[in-house]
Amino acid sequence: MKIGTLGEDAVVAVLTRGLPCGKNVRLGAGDDCAVIGGVRDRVWQLLKTDCVVEGVHFLAKEKPPRIGWKALCRAVSDIAAMGGWPKHALITIAVSRDVKMAWLRGIYAGLRKAARRFGVSIVGGETSRSPGPAFISIALTGEVERARCVTRGGGRAGDFLFVTGRLGGSRAGKHLDFVPRLAEARWLTGNFQIPAMMDLSDGLAADLPRLAKASGCGFEIAGDKIPRTRGCMVAQALGDGEDFELLFAVSPSDVQSLEGKWRAKFPKLPLTQIGTLTRGAVRAKRKSKHRGYDHFA
Amino acid sequence: MKIGTLGEDAVVAVLTRGLPCGKNVRLGAGDDCAVIGGVRDRVWQLLKTDCVVEGVHFLAKEKPPRIGWKALCRAVSDIAAMGGWPKHALITIAVSRDVKMAWLRGIYAGLRKAARRFGVSIVGGETSRSPGPAFISIALTGEVERARCVTRGGGRAGDFLFVTGRLGGSRAGKHLDFVPRLAEARWLTGNFQIPAMMDLSDGLAADLPRLAKASGCGFEIAGDKIPRTRGCMVAQALGDGEDFELLFAVSPSDVQSLEGKWRAKFPKLPLTQIGTLTRGAVRAKRKSKHRGYDHFA
Repeated sequence: MKIGTLGEDAVVAVLTRGLPCGKNVRLGAGDDCAVIGGVRDRVWQLLKTDCVVEGVHFLAKEKPPRIGWKALCRAVSDIAAMGGWPKHALITIAVSRDVKMAWLRGIYAGLRKAARRFGVSIVGGETSRSPGPAFISIALTGEVERARCVTRGGGRAGDFLFVTGRLGGSRAGKHLDFVPRLAEARWLTGNFQIPAMMDLSDGLAADLPRLAKASGCGFEIAGDKIPRTRGCMVAQALGDGEDFELLFAVSPSDVQSLEGKWRAKFPKLPLTQIGTLTRGAVRAKRKSKHRGYDHFA
Repeated sequence: MKIGTLGEDAVVAVLTRGLPCGKNVRLGAGDDCAVIGGVRDRVWQLLKTDCVVEGVHFLAKEKPPRIGWKALCRAVSDIAAMGGWPKHALITIAVSRDVKMAWLRGIYAGLRKAARRFGVSIVGGETSRSPGPAFISIALTGEVERARCVTRGGGRAGDFLFVTGRLGGSRAGKHLDFVPRLAEARWLTGNFQIPAMMDLSDGLAADLPRLAKASGCGFEIAGDKIPRTRGCMVAQALGDGEDFELLFAVSPSDVQSLEGKWRAKFPKLPLTQIGTLTRGAVRAKRKSKHRGYDHFA
């Protein structure tokens, strides 16, 4: 069977079943990052790889520094979503022999800019020939205090669901300029008990069910509450993907405090309560008439 | 300027100049692996990425398990070349939607086999769509005792140069079935002071000058001493690449002991002294009449 018919989640589930896994692997395939460390270690290591492919994640005509920025920031966003901070990156680039040196330098300019901004050391990688589209793969390590490591799987029924920023519109260019919510995630895990968190890479419609499923919960959200990028319909906010905002759960007892402190700390970045985790299987409460809800069907 | 005109080493040199690098980065871009750790840490971490591209490193018709085996073993070979052992791998695969699930399962069968053989935990990765050839990138962490960490750069003039196994013939299929010299490298660094080591991935003609240059030395080798795979000419032994044998330097005082103990420990794997590191710039002693020597010109 072709993998296009199966869908990404099903493909990954089959491939990663029963992978060889040693001790000290706290979390293997299936979350934003892998987590490595001893049960009693104060700090755990995070491992992440992420790739961008020409024609899929960026167009050939885009400015190279924006492509480099995006490539590294995607991985930084996953480290942030675990509550951690990034450390060391390795860059693998496969390109045609006909690529201009200036293009590659542009890619690296974007990579360097993102690395400086988020405290990443670029410690190596590989440059290979490819007869096809350009391919950039980032391997990134990070660290997180054991007590602040957040997975997708700790949410409980009754927890409130929040998203940062505004969703949708990535295709109009936002996907090349987004800022990973590293500072925000560190602040969240430093000031609150965050039971479940992830970054929104495939769109809320695809990602929220993953968080709910990992937490053994269903969810209820109201379409009209979803914070939208100016000019975007709900369908775009749900389905465009590549928002790289944070989606997280919070215990009801923390909600008031969180909302007040957030406004004081990040006055320019909206924080929106979009719904709750519920008991039982995944379902969406149909308060909204927006067609975007079909994504959840 | 097109990168094909510049060549890989020049491209990498330009891209990696002045990369952002934090403290505890013992070794950044330029060796087989990056090395991370405190000056006094007993164990350092090794980081490596390596990719294989359809049409460059393997043909579409190859059996998928052999491709998976090769993809992971290439990275294991780099960890071995630093004197370390591999720990955790992340697998990034970009393929067309039309790829069959059976093909991907075959790739993972090869990856799993290599992981079990060399004690690697596969802890995650990513599967992405690609409109072009299949692309498999491996990110691999490893560890090495600080005292046994071997770079390319510690050789001194007068050191003897050795290679394991036989060189050449990778294109006839060996490149899909090779066994990384992990046990051999661990034994070497456990029993001898190895000043410089690397794995042979681009062929002796390309790789030996890199080791010599990193060590600030020249070299002399005798073409007729180079151990060749059965049926291979010297040119192939020098230039085919993808041998994944070890090339290393040894102090003259250790040579006799090394050769004796090696024969007892690894009776089936040849260990060959091919020449020496010399003072000054890179040059090759022209003892051989084989045309392969043109590679060094």
